[in-house]
Amino acid sequence: MPITGNMIIGADSVRGGESEIYAVNPASGERLEPAFGGGGAAEVERACALAEEAFDAFRETGLEARAAFLEAIAAQILDLGDELIERAMAETGLPRARLEGERGRTVGQLRLFAKVVREGSWLDARIDPALPDRQPLPRPDLRQRHIALGPVAVFGASNFPLAFSVGGGDTASALAAGCPVVVKAHSAHPGTSELVGRAIQAAVTACGLPEGVFSMLFGSGSQIGTALVADPRIKAVGFTGSRRGGTALMEVAAARPEPIPVYAEMSSINPVFLMPAALAARADALGKGFVASLTMGGGQFCTNPGILLAVDGPDLETFLASAVEALGGAAPATMLTPGIHAAFDEGVAALAGNKAVQTLARGQSCTGPNQCQSALFATTAEAFLADPSLQEEVFGSASLLIRCPDLATMAVIAGKLEGQLTATLQMDGADIEAVRGLIPVLERKAGRILANGWPTGVEVCEAMVHGGPFPATSDSRTTSVGTLAIRRFLRPVCYQDLPAELLPEALRDGNPLGLWRRLDGEFGRK
Amino acid sequence: MPITGNMIIGADSVRGGESEIYAVNPASGERLEPAFGGGGAAEVERACALAEEAFDAFRETGLEARAAFLEAIAAQILDLGDELIERAMAETGLPRARLEGERGRTVGQLRLFAKVVREGSWLDARIDPALPDRQPLPRPDLRQRHIALGPVAVFGASNFPLAFSVGGGDTASALAAGCPVVVKAHSAHPGTSELVGRAIQAAVTACGLPEGVFSMLFGSGSQIGTALVADPRIKAVGFTGSRRGGTALMEVAAARPEPIPVYAEMSSINPVFLMPAALAARADALGKGFVASLTMGGGQFCTNPGILLAVDGPDLETFLASAVEALGGAAPATMLTPGIHAAFDEGVAALAGNKAVQTLARGQSCTGPNQCQSALFATTAEAFLADPSLQEEVFGSASLLIRCPDLATMAVIAGKLEGQLTATLQMDGADIEAVRGLIPVLERKAGRILANGWPTGVEVCEAMVHGGPFPATSDSRTTSVGTLAIRRFLRPVCYQDLPAELLPEALRDGNPLGLWRRLDGEFGRK
Repeated sequence: MPITGNMIIGADSVRGGESEIYAVNPASGERLEPAFGGGGAAEVERACALAEEAFDAFRETGLEARAAFLEAIAAQILDLGDELIERAMAETGLPRARLEGERGRTVGQLRLFAKVVREGSWLDARIDPALPDRQPLPRPDLRQRHIALGPVAVFGASNFPLAFSVGGGDTASALAAGCPVVVKAHSAHPGTSELVGRAIQAAVTACGLPEGVFSMLFGSGSQIGTALVADPRIKAVGFTGSRRGGTALMEVAAARPEPIPVYAEMSSINPVFLMPAALAARADALGKGFVASLTMGGGQFCTNPGILLAVDGPDLETFLASAVEALGGAAPATMLTPGIHAAFDEGVAALAGNKAVQTLARGQSCTGPNQCQSALFATTAEAFLADPSLQEEVFGSASLLIRCPDLATMAVIAGKLEGQLTATLQMDGADIEAVRGLIPVLERKAGRILANGWPTGVEVCEAMVHGGPFPATSDSRTTSVGTLAIRRFLRPVCYQDLPAELLPEALRDGNPLGLWRRLDGEFGRK
Repeated sequence: MPITGNMIIGADSVRGGESEIYAVNPASGERLEPAFGGGGAAEVERACALAEEAFDAFRETGLEARAAFLEAIAAQILDLGDELIERAMAETGLPRARLEGERGRTVGQLRLFAKVVREGSWLDARIDPALPDRQPLPRPDLRQRHIALGPVAVFGASNFPLAFSVGGGDTASALAAGCPVVVKAHSAHPGTSELVGRAIQAAVTACGLPEGVFSMLFGSGSQIGTALVADPRIKAVGFTGSRRGGTALMEVAAARPEPIPVYAEMSSINPVFLMPAALAARADALGKGFVASLTMGGGQFCTNPGILLAVDGPDLETFLASAVEALGGAAPATMLTPGIHAAFDEGVAALAGNKAVQTLARGQSCTGPNQCQSALFATTAEAFLADPSLQEEVFGSASLLIRCPDLATMAVIAGKLEGQLTATLQMDGADIEAVRGLIPVLERKAGRILANGWPTGVEVCEAMVHGGPFPATSDSRTTSVGTLAIRRFLRPVCYQDLPAELLPEALRDGNPLGLWRRLDGEFGRK
């Protein structure tokens, strides 16, 4: 079936009449057919009503049924075949290999959450048996599990049209937790969104689930997103995007009669610390590695290395010579949207025009529309500390080197940074003691600390944290990538002396689900 | 040492000069000596600076050292002996037995968190070993643990001068997580607060911890509390009190340049559902049991049963006859403060003056100042649904019966309730199917669902949830009682390819701490 331009509301395909949205091929600047009809209050109302209706049944689907549903979504996405890849290429300017890889990641993520759901530890089942003879008072029978929060609003991201969008990590983890999802599709890739949305809709039908488990709305501007977050039936929000967009949703959520959690992954400049021994040992290789990370995918990653910190000296000059050479040869990359491209050019111009900032290198000149010409800047520690605007994220292949007089200054700057998704250490054996002093600072600033790698590339696994203190995210207690992401959409409920036949299966005597549980304080599978 | 009226800032005893606070004996209306000096911006600044200074060292104390510290606090509180109980009696009007019990609970709570800290599951350690040969890309070594959020502001509650105050559950769980604590003492029991604060201060010294691990401030009005929550070094807030107080702190926290989580336990009317078969079988006993729960401690519990729901009919009349008789004989209880007493009288007067509300019974008349004369009211389902003011909490021994025409109406009302700490079911075997339909509604409304008990009485254990959707609390994903409370003060950090000697002990190969960890996806002690 060709792309229709319609929204998905439960089992229906609904034409929005509030606005008309077209995707643009950023590589050519051309408008792509068809037109997508943006929805309004009526469609938000209907999607939320269906999600609410579906919630109680969906959250109590058995673990196996829920896992099978996530796997069915993965299969349906794969079944879209090359149509999905081609449409995503046209809408984003991203190359085929990247999008095929991203599809693999998206499908793998859904399957990983299926495994998480089946294993069931996320229920955090706890049983404190009754102590009827305890003095001075008996203890009742107390049992706890986690349940789904309620319908969740998910905002697709522009920079990962598959892995952080309609069927991405927020949707996968919310569905895994038992929450129906209403997606506001990103207007930069509506066709990709429709295809993935239809795949999820087909999985809902195939698995015999209530239709309200999934809906997807289009809309230009912020109106429909605001209405969605304000709807009383929505109980949590997942968002990946700009600081301005994320904080706007945080405000809407906090102003509701019933405030709700917002999980917004927003803004990070991902500092890279080039430690002295590492620089001495391999400045040239570091320069090349850094530029490869900086320019990958046009620098359009949340974890793109936006600042570098190093102690001034000959080793840093060697690094710079290598980085400047590599960057000078870097081909321009088509950016995701004209808006993102304009913001990049604006950010780069602001740095280039800042008197305290030196332009070290630019990449190859642009040869087509919406291209990102990479940029490397330098400033002093003093200037960086004096000018908060130098901490602002420039989304794309631009990075700022902060020349530090010594390691102590580097640590001071680390302490003054805003919250980050990542902090990277390039270090050798002789740097260990200096790094030991930095780690406590970095732990407070970032969700992930990495050594001798580059921050781009986020593994989907048990131990990943793609999160961090504000403004990297709105909630440092969580991650939006990896299995811990499911916890964002859960809350604990305690059952006291409830008759056995009314207890949820996860909490029954004899452990019928074979869960890891905490029984009378002891972990085990009893 | 006699009570000084001084604040505790780290190792110092500091006289506040901003205001003068006296405790009042609510039973006599008399002012108690000494005067307590309220602090201001300078003391907030100093307490927060010390907490920040202490944070990195304190959060990395070993599990054994941290547990021993919590146990030392418990011992120091017990060492205060009868002076603590007598001062608390004078300041709160609560009887000796209740306060001795509360002391036992407070000490037990600290010891339980010591056990939790030692066991270490809260670190949620996860290790995904490197897969260097994986195709198309190798996997790096990824390890995750949880770390403390940062210094925490705790607001003591008026109604539990020990268990939810200076050394109560918020403080115990924040310290267990590794967060320094700055307490804003409740002005209703400043002497009790000073004694407990000094006990904690002594434990800090005895355990050789940095002095900033604990401070305690006095202050009248909301100024000092607002300054504390707004301080950039504070990273989370624990609060037990009124809806107005809690939402005010939520607003301050959300408006910060870096918003922080607020865990406010606020307002709950704790519905009790009297199911038909239970009423038929034991209406008389239920009436007596209900009044005992309603009037316990002057009704000054967060989980006090503020509304009753039942289907009209002869069994309900039997229940009411029993309840009215019991309530009529209920002695008046001294309330905690003149302010709480005035608010109770106001709330009762509003109900009594509501045309849709019938006064069924009042307890015995007051014989002294600040006493609570219990009250039982009734209204119709229709009136309750039409008037949101009937959902407002009246703190004290007052309850409102909602006469329902049928079970379906009872379920409709359940669905219209605001968030609650508890929902109670009085039920017999023949009620099972009706209750089965109610449970999904109650799970969405309350943190704890209990059968055939009364909501007052909150066990401190693994499975407890003392929480619930707004406005019962500000964050339904948490509990303020029980071991899960520690999770409020933690956030995950991921370490990628970090050299072994820099890894935190919890994440080292060979599991030196003997923790439950998730290794390559499998739970175990490896």
